[in-house]
Amino acid sequence: MSVSPLFTDLYQLTMAYGYWKAGLREHEATFHAFFRRPPFNGGYSVTAGLEAVCQFLSDWQFSDEELDYLASLIDRAGTPLFPAPFLKYLKALRFTCAVDAMPEGTPVFPYEPMLRVQGPIIQAQLVESPVLNLINFPTLIATKAARICQAAQGDPVIEFGMRRAQGVDGALTAARSAYIGGCESTSDTQAGMLYGIPVRGTHSHSWVLAFDTEQDSFEAFVDAYPDNAILLVDTFDSLEGVRKTIAVAQKLRKRGHEIFGIRLDSGDLAYLSVHARAMLDEAGFPEAHIVASNELDENLITDLKRQGAKVDMWGVGTHLVTAKGDSSLSGVYKLSAVRAPGGAWQPKLKLSEQLVKVTDPGVLQVRRFEKEGLFIGDLLFDTDLPPQEPYRAIDPFDHLRSKRFDAPFTDLLVPIFRAGRQVYTSPPLPTIQQHAQQQLAKLHPTHKRLLNPHPYVVGMDQQLHQLKMDLIQQARKEEMVWQKP
Amino acid sequence: MSVSPLFTDLYQLTMAYGYWKAGLREHEATFHAFFRRPPFNGGYSVTAGLEAVCQFLSDWQFSDEELDYLASLIDRAGTPLFPAPFLKYLKALRFTCAVDAMPEGTPVFPYEPMLRVQGPIIQAQLVESPVLNLINFPTLIATKAARICQAAQGDPVIEFGMRRAQGVDGALTAARSAYIGGCESTSDTQAGMLYGIPVRGTHSHSWVLAFDTEQDSFEAFVDAYPDNAILLVDTFDSLEGVRKTIAVAQKLRKRGHEIFGIRLDSGDLAYLSVHARAMLDEAGFPEAHIVASNELDENLITDLKRQGAKVDMWGVGTHLVTAKGDSSLSGVYKLSAVRAPGGAWQPKLKLSEQLVKVTDPGVLQVRRFEKEGLFIGDLLFDTDLPPQEPYRAIDPFDHLRSKRFDAPFTDLLVPIFRAGRQVYTSPPLPTIQQHAQQQLAKLHPTHKRLLNPHPYVVGMDQQLHQLKMDLIQQARKEEMVWQKP
Repeated sequence: MSVSPLFTDLYQLTMAYGYWKAGLREHEATFHAFFRRPPFNGGYSVTAGLEAVCQFLSDWQFSDEELDYLASLIDRAGTPLFPAPFLKYLKALRFTCAVDAMPEGTPVFPYEPMLRVQGPIIQAQLVESPVLNLINFPTLIATKAARICQAAQGDPVIEFGMRRAQGVDGALTAARSAYIGGCESTSDTQAGMLYGIPVRGTHSHSWVLAFDTEQDSFEAFVDAYPDNAILLVDTFDSLEGVRKTIAVAQKLRKRGHEIFGIRLDSGDLAYLSVHARAMLDEAGFPEAHIVASNELDENLITDLKRQGAKVDMWGVGTHLVTAKGDSSLSGVYKLSAVRAPGGAWQPKLKLSEQLVKVTDPGVLQVRRFEKEGLFIGDLLFDTDLPPQEPYRAIDPFDHLRSKRFDAPFTDLLVPIFRAGRQVYTSPPLPTIQQHAQQQLAKLHPTHKRLLNPHPYVVGMDQQLHQLKMDLIQQARKEEMVWQKP
Repeated sequence: MSVSPLFTDLYQLTMAYGYWKAGLREHEATFHAFFRRPPFNGGYSVTAGLEAVCQFLSDWQFSDEELDYLASLIDRAGTPLFPAPFLKYLKALRFTCAVDAMPEGTPVFPYEPMLRVQGPIIQAQLVESPVLNLINFPTLIATKAARICQAAQGDPVIEFGMRRAQGVDGALTAARSAYIGGCESTSDTQAGMLYGIPVRGTHSHSWVLAFDTEQDSFEAFVDAYPDNAILLVDTFDSLEGVRKTIAVAQKLRKRGHEIFGIRLDSGDLAYLSVHARAMLDEAGFPEAHIVASNELDENLITDLKRQGAKVDMWGVGTHLVTAKGDSSLSGVYKLSAVRAPGGAWQPKLKLSEQLVKVTDPGVLQVRRFEKEGLFIGDLLFDTDLPPQEPYRAIDPFDHLRSKRFDAPFTDLLVPIFRAGRQVYTSPPLPTIQQHAQQQLAKLHPTHKRLLNPHPYVVGMDQQLHQLKMDLIQQARKEEMVWQKP
């Protein structure tokens, strides 16, 4: 899917023109994309979306049609928003920035840059909105999927939310991201074709209603798919549907085929699955699967498991692909340094009355420490102020608290673009899924708890912390701190 | 945007093959799309998405590449899911169904069909998932936008959620749907180009940080946009930012231009807007607008209004485009009648233990009655059993309650496709927006209350009600009703 460079907020373009007019077109900026709050009150997120960002930035170029549209925009005084010389400049513009990012499938925590863009401020500004769009949603869904798969405790989870997804590519991107987060397959046939994700599906209630009786419909379905039939049993009465399935399965076995399973889509899934399992086992079909669906999410699956539900495959739709509980990742893209042509990076921060909303200055990198197969914490540092051993991470919101790291580490942001050319090759999707699984396995279970997780340590290097404090002091005037009654 | 016919759940394709194999390819079916629960605990929804449905159905045709992909799919026994003769059949398949639907911008209530598809069961089944995807999300967002605009009481609402939207077309579709629901404009430049929606935007915090001082940044911005500058004042200290805006605005006035306004994006918006308004008024800028943004939704806007916030334009992003509170419309698409070649429609329903989940049988239409400029209620009926005067609507979940309608009416489902050809012309977007406003004005305020709205009357015609009861009786066996302990 090709994403237009006009897929950006208009203010990116008005600022671009402003920079151009103010003579800043050769100035460079550093921006970082990060989020402040983990979604779903969880303890971790899983990055996704980088492949689409690479595609977008590689293709980034304004077409004549797009420039004509921009030329047509006027302000309330009737003046064009974008004068012709600027549009000519845009026409010739190519992406020349450097991009570093965490690979897809990496566990990520609040305040950690997932992606960094450095280069001419006009370009870095123009790509803000699309870059955020292209990583916020996939990261949200990969995270939701990881939580759901965690609740399913190894049972296959099938994503089938396309009908309720937020838009067409809301569905396609959700399918890809859910697969990264651990889903086994999708019902979205196009996602199968585009991304190579395994596709699954059998029949719905309308299939049953299209025949004179439920029994007829089951017979017809196994006739079409003798080796692939998961029969939906709840159109009239779920356990009666199981009885009919057994009758059909017995005839099928005589023809040399095995029923694949049944699907429960309504009612008390715990009660029904236990009874259905007993009926199938007793009739000699212990291998037949029981798929459950119906507005499931990680909490319902956890609860069904706790009740001893005999479900071994989970179909999860709406609440996975629209991220029930947090329909957006609160990802932002903040300027943290600027430099004039030939100059050095000048760190910048945005103040706020709340310390948690003051941005981190500099050109940042994330160092992750690992000990005995577990991640023990991350250190945020400014690449211009490389951290010194012993590594010590300061709690960004309690500066008297710190943690020392003495272990092997990995720096998480890797080169993606250099001088506008892509230098990173996105791995095949199954490799990304596998990477995510391996990485998540290195998180201590307390960080992965669905409810009230133990926070993972993300600290600031001492030099970066000092730089931030100095800049806040500089920018803040005493009277602003307590200005209100 | 062209949507692939493979953008469908795999089970639609396996059922299609099943129908084909079972000799039902000439059989016809009637399906209706509707939802059971209004989103956001509200009293109404606003339809949207029909234009995209028209485009999709007009283009609907399998390409060789798509058929090759289908040919590659195998089941666990290694058998192709779709044998070659069936794929040949798909290759030749064209859309020949009839479609009726409510025009975009129509208020719609639970259980009312928004769209009806009638035709060969294979086709009607294959388009289920995409049709739902293409109307569920737009309807959700048009509804959310209508609620937000209602809270804003006539102040312009600017949609600017693209960075947090669920995918690229999650953002574009949200922009279009938000406009239908009443938004004045969008920040999404591509949505402006594609749909002709007015676009808005000025600058962000990074603009301010790119200059040595906030004052410099403001000067540079009004230099670029003397007639279009809304200055973002909260990068360091909001009221200090207002003071600097005033200084800049005074110089600007001497050059013959007027500042457009300021934007508040953090802090106590009620407190800050009141003070900013007073400062601007006192300095001689009573026309300068105050735009507020920062995680707004209909409830926050209502509360800010209640507190006397002096905001006259609202920027609403994340919570509008991702539909905070209900990230999906629970729209479904249910089979309600089938007919064999040459036969009559045979009504069908799906049972459930809960009456609210039993589907309505027949070929349905919605009749809306209007008295003295207000909609007084809707009557659901089977087109094969036309309602007789006096029109009486039976409460579907309390059959001893009914309401008589004696007023002019409109039948809401209008012809969209006949024999696969589009017979409906989608109005221009501003006309749709206007239509929605006019229609919403005819809903009594009690139905539009954001909290605990009074339910709008939607009843069943007596003949349809009787038909449904008879079919339930027929399908239900006594022992199923109370089967559990």
